[in-house]
Amino acid sequence: MLATETKRIAPPKRLMYGPGPSMVDPRAYEAMAQPIVGMRDPYFLEIMAEIQAGLRQALGTNSEKVFMVPGSGSAAMEAAVVNFVTPGSKFAIFAAGHFADRMTLMGQRQRAVVVRLEKPWGEIFTAAEAQDFIERERPDVVGFVQAETSTGAYQSGRNITAAARAVNTLVIADCVTSLGAMPVEMDAVGIDVAYSCSQKGLSCPAGLSPIAVSPRAWERVEKRAELPFSWYLDLAVMSKYFEPPHVYQHTPSPPLYYAMHQGLAVIEEEGLQNRWERHRRAGEKLVEGLQRLGFQLLVKRADERIWHVTTVTPPDSVDEAKLREALLQKYNIEIAGGLGQLAGKILRIGTMGPLATEENVAFLLDAIAASI
Amino acid sequence: MLATETKRIAPPKRLMYGPGPSMVDPRAYEAMAQPIVGMRDPYFLEIMAEIQAGLRQALGTNSEKVFMVPGSGSAAMEAAVVNFVTPGSKFAIFAAGHFADRMTLMGQRQRAVVVRLEKPWGEIFTAAEAQDFIERERPDVVGFVQAETSTGAYQSGRNITAAARAVNTLVIADCVTSLGAMPVEMDAVGIDVAYSCSQKGLSCPAGLSPIAVSPRAWERVEKRAELPFSWYLDLAVMSKYFEPPHVYQHTPSPPLYYAMHQGLAVIEEEGLQNRWERHRRAGEKLVEGLQRLGFQLLVKRADERIWHVTTVTPPDSVDEAKLREALLQKYNIEIAGGLGQLAGKILRIGTMGPLATEENVAFLLDAIAASI
Repeated sequence: MLATETKRIAPPKRLMYGPGPSMVDPRAYEAMAQPIVGMRDPYFLEIMAEIQAGLRQALGTNSEKVFMVPGSGSAAMEAAVVNFVTPGSKFAIFAAGHFADRMTLMGQRQRAVVVRLEKPWGEIFTAAEAQDFIERERPDVVGFVQAETSTGAYQSGRNITAAARAVNTLVIADCVTSLGAMPVEMDAVGIDVAYSCSQKGLSCPAGLSPIAVSPRAWERVEKRAELPFSWYLDLAVMSKYFEPPHVYQHTPSPPLYYAMHQGLAVIEEEGLQNRWERHRRAGEKLVEGLQRLGFQLLVKRADERIWHVTTVTPPDSVDEAKLREALLQKYNIEIAGGLGQLAGKILRIGTMGPLATEENVAFLLDAIAASI
Repeated sequence: MLATETKRIAPPKRLMYGPGPSMVDPRAYEAMAQPIVGMRDPYFLEIMAEIQAGLRQALGTNSEKVFMVPGSGSAAMEAAVVNFVTPGSKFAIFAAGHFADRMTLMGQRQRAVVVRLEKPWGEIFTAAEAQDFIERERPDVVGFVQAETSTGAYQSGRNITAAARAVNTLVIADCVTSLGAMPVEMDAVGIDVAYSCSQKGLSCPAGLSPIAVSPRAWERVEKRAELPFSWYLDLAVMSKYFEPPHVYQHTPSPPLYYAMHQGLAVIEEEGLQNRWERHRRAGEKLVEGLQRLGFQLLVKRADERIWHVTTVTPPDSVDEAKLREALLQKYNIEIAGGLGQLAGKILRIGTMGPLATEENVAFLLDAIAASI
């Protein structure tokens, strides 16, 4: 008899205070229990269109080209890179964290010339730095991370897009952690390609990842001379499924669509601005509380912080791995350690969706206080 | 107010008699309603290992290298191609259907030299044809489709693997439609890279796609001179998440894992051989009934047919699109039309998982009889 036989799924009820995956909204669970339908069923196409409309709102874009990449946030990152970063072209990356490094790897795999402006992890880029870098390199495409989950640093991207547009360079923005919890404002900021995920600010499970493309970027897709290396992530092929006549490309996952539909409905009911404000306030409370407990913030300036992902170094007396283990064992609380060069050095704490309230922040702070 | 606001998910209850997505097992729905946990949570790693064990059984392999690609079956196809078909190498494809054509496109995107042995859609390849093609072309990799969903034709692959092994050629097999409903038998057949999906024979929703790699194929991954174009689907990177120390690569989707765990548990409880036999019998009943109603089989020989995907041309008096529409409207039954060159010409009818019973076949036949 194998281990799976007769066994039912009975996970521990974790409180997902990490930087994502975050708590799934109860309405998303309810939605996933609803029966699947076919990929071109009239009902499914209705849900698809409503998700696209909801994503346009949450991303802050009027672009028609909004799709749900069938995969994790990294699939959406790769979709952005393979469709816009061509072999031999110059791809300039603003690099101050793990996900900028991941974007670098993907650019290199496309056999592009990847150049990087590097700053210490946790910092963001000034307008002068962006302008200088872009004017010097004159890249075809630039990439930056709006909310760098590995460091807790946020920048809208306005410093970067202005310089990029001046030299007709496309701007790819990693909005994996910003969408649904703080401003993306794709059109207002001037982002050409914004991608995200489902398992952070949208309070859904992972596996379905939004991508939006500006009209001027879409022109490049239409005029391209060479096909991208990926068929699965080719947006020209994929778009034909998301637009009439909805030509079969991949088989979508209805439960993930149903969940995202409800995640977006919850955001619309609360109001996007209200939701941002709630995440901002919860983050402030968490920052205050952690400082009281002797934790040091990695991102010094409040206006450079992701509201809902707080990164701290623990007091000398606290072992970060032991604290994480204690919280998991005693309270079913998941928080995360650092990634890459910050592994073992920092803690990353998320307060997203249902957890972004004063009560839930207080509960977490009490648990941490009792465990250090 | 947007369309999504306050709206709950309330899909029609379709009977999924298409070639996939098929009916989701009730236990998979129940599993998806369970709370998510983190991607390295001890509970999640336990579920992951049990899925891998269940997949080894269902695929018929002892290989340690069994992974769940985060995406649809086409993501798994692309994972197979990008990891084993290198630029400039020769990729030989046995082409008699839509999914062999898709594999061709993916091979071309890798800048490989793709050669094809073409036969009419619905046919399979003899040992002599396979041997002649492989000896003539001496390819680095061959690709074939074990169960060609677009035509209803099945071939185990034994005719192909024998010739391929004789010249040290790797064999990629598309097992998207065979897994869980009829024999894959990866090791016994001699397949090196087998990939599949979740939404057909496993009775799960789409979005998580198994791939298994033989030891001799994995050696090529380890000895490769150049990185594949894809980072997201790079099996060397991905494998580090599926094996200790479970290094973060992508964020997995817990509901899809939970569903697959239960899908495999249901198969183990029934017994793989029993399940195959049930699908075989249901397919026979359907074939008999459709012939009685005047439908013609596309695949003439019984031993070349996919048991659970039956492909037929309707009688002259029947318009296939109108029949599909009538079944959907009157009975909530989804069946599918043809793909590509068979669009408008054939119907594709699936009897998988919960629907592969005599009663459910009889119900479908009654509905068809009443609609033509």
